[in-house]
Amino acid sequence: MAKTFREKATWIWYPGDFEIWLGNRFNNRRTERGAVFPPFWKQDSPWATVTFCLRVDLARKESVRLRVDGRFSLSLDGKLQFGQPAEFTVPAGRHEIAVKVHNPNTPPALFAEGTTIRSGKDWTVTYEDKIWIDENGVAHGSGVYVPPGQWNFDDPDRSPASFRLPCEYHAPASVQRIEREEGTSLLLDFGSETFGYLQLDGISRPGSIDVFYGESREEACDRDFCETLDRFELGKGDFTAPDSKAFRFVLVDLPAGMEIARAGMQFEYLPQDASSSGTFACSDEELNRIWEVSAYTLDLTTREFMTDGIKRDRWTWSGDAIQSYLMNYYLHFDVQTVKRTIRQLRGKDPVTSHINTILDYTFYWFKSICDYYLYTGDEAFVREIYPRMKTLADYVLGRLDSDGLAVGQPDDWVFVDWVDFPMHKRGVLCFEQFLLAKSLETMQLCRDLVGDTGAPDYGAMAREVLRKTDERFWNSGAHAYMHALEPQDGRMVLNPQITKFPNMFAVNYGFVSEERAEEILEHVLQNPDVPAITTPYMRFYELEALCSLGCKDGVIPQIKAYWGGMLREGATSFWEKYNLEMHGAEHLAMYGRPYGKSLCHAWGASPLYLIGRYFLGVEPTAPGYAAWTARPCLGGLEWMKGDVPTPHGLIHIEMDRSQLRISVPKGIGEGTVFLDGQQLRIRGGETATIGY
Amino acid sequence: MAKTFREKATWIWYPGDFEIWLGNRFNNRRTERGAVFPPFWKQDSPWATVTFCLRVDLARKESVRLRVDGRFSLSLDGKLQFGQPAEFTVPAGRHEIAVKVHNPNTPPALFAEGTTIRSGKDWTVTYEDKIWIDENGVAHGSGVYVPPGQWNFDDPDRSPASFRLPCEYHAPASVQRIEREEGTSLLLDFGSETFGYLQLDGISRPGSIDVFYGESREEACDRDFCETLDRFELGKGDFTAPDSKAFRFVLVDLPAGMEIARAGMQFEYLPQDASSSGTFACSDEELNRIWEVSAYTLDLTTREFMTDGIKRDRWTWSGDAIQSYLMNYYLHFDVQTVKRTIRQLRGKDPVTSHINTILDYTFYWFKSICDYYLYTGDEAFVREIYPRMKTLADYVLGRLDSDGLAVGQPDDWVFVDWVDFPMHKRGVLCFEQFLLAKSLETMQLCRDLVGDTGAPDYGAMAREVLRKTDERFWNSGAHAYMHALEPQDGRMVLNPQITKFPNMFAVNYGFVSEERAEEILEHVLQNPDVPAITTPYMRFYELEALCSLGCKDGVIPQIKAYWGGMLREGATSFWEKYNLEMHGAEHLAMYGRPYGKSLCHAWGASPLYLIGRYFLGVEPTAPGYAAWTARPCLGGLEWMKGDVPTPHGLIHIEMDRSQLRISVPKGIGEGTVFLDGQQLRIRGGETATIGY
Repeated sequence: MAKTFREKATWIWYPGDFEIWLGNRFNNRRTERGAVFPPFWKQDSPWATVTFCLRVDLARKESVRLRVDGRFSLSLDGKLQFGQPAEFTVPAGRHEIAVKVHNPNTPPALFAEGTTIRSGKDWTVTYEDKIWIDENGVAHGSGVYVPPGQWNFDDPDRSPASFRLPCEYHAPASVQRIEREEGTSLLLDFGSETFGYLQLDGISRPGSIDVFYGESREEACDRDFCETLDRFELGKGDFTAPDSKAFRFVLVDLPAGMEIARAGMQFEYLPQDASSSGTFACSDEELNRIWEVSAYTLDLTTREFMTDGIKRDRWTWSGDAIQSYLMNYYLHFDVQTVKRTIRQLRGKDPVTSHINTILDYTFYWFKSICDYYLYTGDEAFVREIYPRMKTLADYVLGRLDSDGLAVGQPDDWVFVDWVDFPMHKRGVLCFEQFLLAKSLETMQLCRDLVGDTGAPDYGAMAREVLRKTDERFWNSGAHAYMHALEPQDGRMVLNPQITKFPNMFAVNYGFVSEERAEEILEHVLQNPDVPAITTPYMRFYELEALCSLGCKDGVIPQIKAYWGGMLREGATSFWEKYNLEMHGAEHLAMYGRPYGKSLCHAWGASPLYLIGRYFLGVEPTAPGYAAWTARPCLGGLEWMKGDVPTPHGLIHIEMDRSQLRISVPKGIGEGTVFLDGQQLRIRGGETATIGY
Repeated sequence: MAKTFREKATWIWYPGDFEIWLGNRFNNRRTERGAVFPPFWKQDSPWATVTFCLRVDLARKESVRLRVDGRFSLSLDGKLQFGQPAEFTVPAGRHEIAVKVHNPNTPPALFAEGTTIRSGKDWTVTYEDKIWIDENGVAHGSGVYVPPGQWNFDDPDRSPASFRLPCEYHAPASVQRIEREEGTSLLLDFGSETFGYLQLDGISRPGSIDVFYGESREEACDRDFCETLDRFELGKGDFTAPDSKAFRFVLVDLPAGMEIARAGMQFEYLPQDASSSGTFACSDEELNRIWEVSAYTLDLTTREFMTDGIKRDRWTWSGDAIQSYLMNYYLHFDVQTVKRTIRQLRGKDPVTSHINTILDYTFYWFKSICDYYLYTGDEAFVREIYPRMKTLADYVLGRLDSDGLAVGQPDDWVFVDWVDFPMHKRGVLCFEQFLLAKSLETMQLCRDLVGDTGAPDYGAMAREVLRKTDERFWNSGAHAYMHALEPQDGRMVLNPQITKFPNMFAVNYGFVSEERAEEILEHVLQNPDVPAITTPYMRFYELEALCSLGCKDGVIPQIKAYWGGMLREGATSFWEKYNLEMHGAEHLAMYGRPYGKSLCHAWGASPLYLIGRYFLGVEPTAPGYAAWTARPCLGGLEWMKGDVPTPHGLIHIEMDRSQLRISVPKGIGEGTVFLDGQQLRIRGGETATIGY
């Protein structure tokens, strides 16, 4: 009996809808001192009704089991079937199956399983089947069908709407009892930053408790100013908090006479596969600890989506996410979470504001797709997201100034960075033009990939933006791109400010010649008169620029000083912002609030990326590692070893001061290893040892 | 103590969101032989998160009670308040209150009630507050705020999501017992078309029943082909069907040994105020019955929204709805249901297809707003809906052909009418150009009303469409607008077909001179060689054209023949289609199905409009009856009397062959009565008796 191999059945939905639904749950869970705190931008909803379709040609009749999340109709060859059948039979021959699902609350989703008919990527889906009847009474369907969304929902009993991250019980490292007049307080210390649900077991009597969370001891103990808190009415017995929080310390105020037998937490996390994850170890223990704490920081902030901070904001932010993606390509290579986050950030049409309302964040969103395609080679995702790229590009192009350059409109947030010096964010910023040009280049790349020949020539637009940017902003006397053009007496004039931002992006995005890059290095990046960068966010790009300009040996000390500095201040995860001049509790304040700073912030984990890409030194040069390079560099270390994940498995590197050993997984494209003036070609499945 | 008068508090939401949510419930309740049958077009969802805002200047502090449908945050002067308070205090002075509500399932909604602070139309709402922080750390909100949606949800305990139509118990007119081998069947006859939930009380034992619904006895008794049916598992006791159905007859197959003590139904209806409703009575009993059955037909199809048919499709259709609106202006003047239906049909951006996927239905949607404004003078609604008019207009303009004319694109349904003769629906149809021109005129009207000076000159576009339509389609030899331009050998040529459609719309929309209208009357409308119209849908426009061309005396006999014909066939509500040549059960079939025809179809009720507008003869000539005319006409009757509702109350008319008596409500604008060559001006609150 002939049997065709089929993938197993999996739940399917309209692409993006799962993420939009999950994003609503995710982004609306933030609280601030007991108040719910939803985001500032438009939140969409899944399509309420979608139609799933499959055309088959069956050798024999087949019974198909259906699970549907929503009310549904089933039609076979255009004929509606009775009721909402849990099972139906498709006769042998050519047939068309359509399942139309209505669900006003959670994403309409389908699970279908027969011998050969199985819900999965050979199905298509539309949000409007647009059936219409011609003058002869013949029905036509003119809906636009696309491949469905799917992930790992392979259990018919667990639809996408049942999605929850797993939890495991964690006990505190220590519990301190503090007696108050009104009762006892418990101060739980979990030993390091963590995330989840407070759990109190064996509550001796009913009563009301107040809970104060802190990423620091100071915060948890400051009932008046800690950022997150809860009040719970407890019964006798066991209790788990309904909402998750970020903390290391928890102060629980119990009323008089209430005792708790066991206080702990349910740690909530996104499982990752350690066997396919990146690793790093070297001769410098501090750097090893920096890498580990970076990995822990990224793991804590990589959840339903890649978020900024787990205490605050608990929202998806495009500028934060693009860095998480890049770090992730060197840690877990978790492409699913990258895709989920890209989809969620984009939401649905119509576009009514920039991503997160921020001009730069729209541009990072485009760039993140360019990166994603380079690391993964996943054309299918580009095809899926391209229509939403195009409408966002329309929005961007519709808001350029009369000179064709990106400018913050009155309702746009122009972010650039949190800086400690006065910096112009209005007018025309050079920084934004480089981001615009990269976005347009990405549009051109994807336009060509999907064959959208009717689309504008985004490549030509990008070149024109770069030409104007050079003409308007390059100051050959200062050897720098100037920061801003501003209106003065009716014309645009250059503001004298120089910042690192446009200059390092020009380098990182490959928009300048080697000569000009050298000028920028000397006169801007290494110029102590140019204001220093104080956020790990922009340190990411600054150190990347230094690495790519051959200053790797100077970068390891900078990493040790900056991230090592946070460790010396007691960090167990990396922070939103760090100033080497400050010490102790001074670090906790931000936004004018004593504990406003997030102490577990994704952009704090950038050593993962810097070490993987510039010291282990591996990067793809063609989509999905069809071609790649390795430029390993000890950067002053005695030895290092590590793994860099690729779509085909791990590239393993071990290096000391005399030799490099590199193992390459099967299936990967040919790579080139650059080492001390040598070039070695290496192919999938090979291992090489190179002395130098 | 000074006390400012304030309107009572009412639930508020983002405009359109209640209708979008309710529309999803409404349009997804259709079933066909047990299968769920959702619509063919995109179904949107309410915004998941919205922010309600109010600026106040309080003489004294005030306590405000909050009811919120969703999770919410409250901020006072930009500062978040703890938790989700049920009550809070606003201090005296100037303050800004913002309530941000997240609800992923039903429309986020707010009810706030204090001494002077009360949720209502002085609040504003946005779906994205777009808060952003400038380089000085100052927060800005750049969201676009609009007046909120509201209706009659004045009870804090009943949020908009609790909306249900009321029901009342109706007993059948007769019950027939039919013994079968397997048990007893009950055939319930409710005496006339009805709508609601089957109710079975005193069920003697558990068991499974089959239920077959019929608008006719034939349908209910045809288990194999009736359009709607149910199978229920009953317990002992009482049962009410979970879903509503349309029927006059219900056949219930009981299993052996099951007895039902009482079988009836819960009649579901939209309450209307009889005291402000239109009336009509005249010397012709048949015409009186036609008016009454029309009113009943419109009442049955006027529900959560104005729908086409209550058996089928139970969806909102724009072409059907515009006629219901016009009839309604002469029956209940129920502006809320008109607004709900207009909002629901439009849904949300982006526009991805024509309204109901039908080219003409998009145009009727525009025209319905022109009508609505004329009858009601409600500028606030025009302001609310205008942004969605504009994006729909963009869609329309983006799909014109290279000649600037409306043409069915491959994914459009071009409907025009259900006709019994071969009619061209592809190519460029003259009919669609008149609808397009009226849409553009409506856009110009509303553009001027809201002061959108940046918008295109829609008026000039309309004139250009009309100029081209005259040039391309008017055939002076045939004295007719030809039906279609079709491509032939690479150029567009006129098809020789002549239909009434474009010609009667040219007359009704006032696009032709009196001379040309006379030509059309003689050579098209009264020409027996031009194919007859057989749907009440297009009879509406045909009879309107005849009335406006002075052929009123001929119209009453036509109404009596056509609608009287349905009554003689036993109609208790008016049908989707009627052919005078057919009799008995022949009338039940449509769409190739023996009971496919809807026997209670809104467009069947057009005598309401024709009588009110052309025989009682009242119509507004300036928005909201600021000016109006009455041209009462007996049309061959001995006497008639009736009431025409206006925003200001009823205009009462009594007329016989010697005199007219007219009473006009206070507050209405000045009217002009035209009678037998006389013209009389009449003002609000006056009564006049005019002999002739």
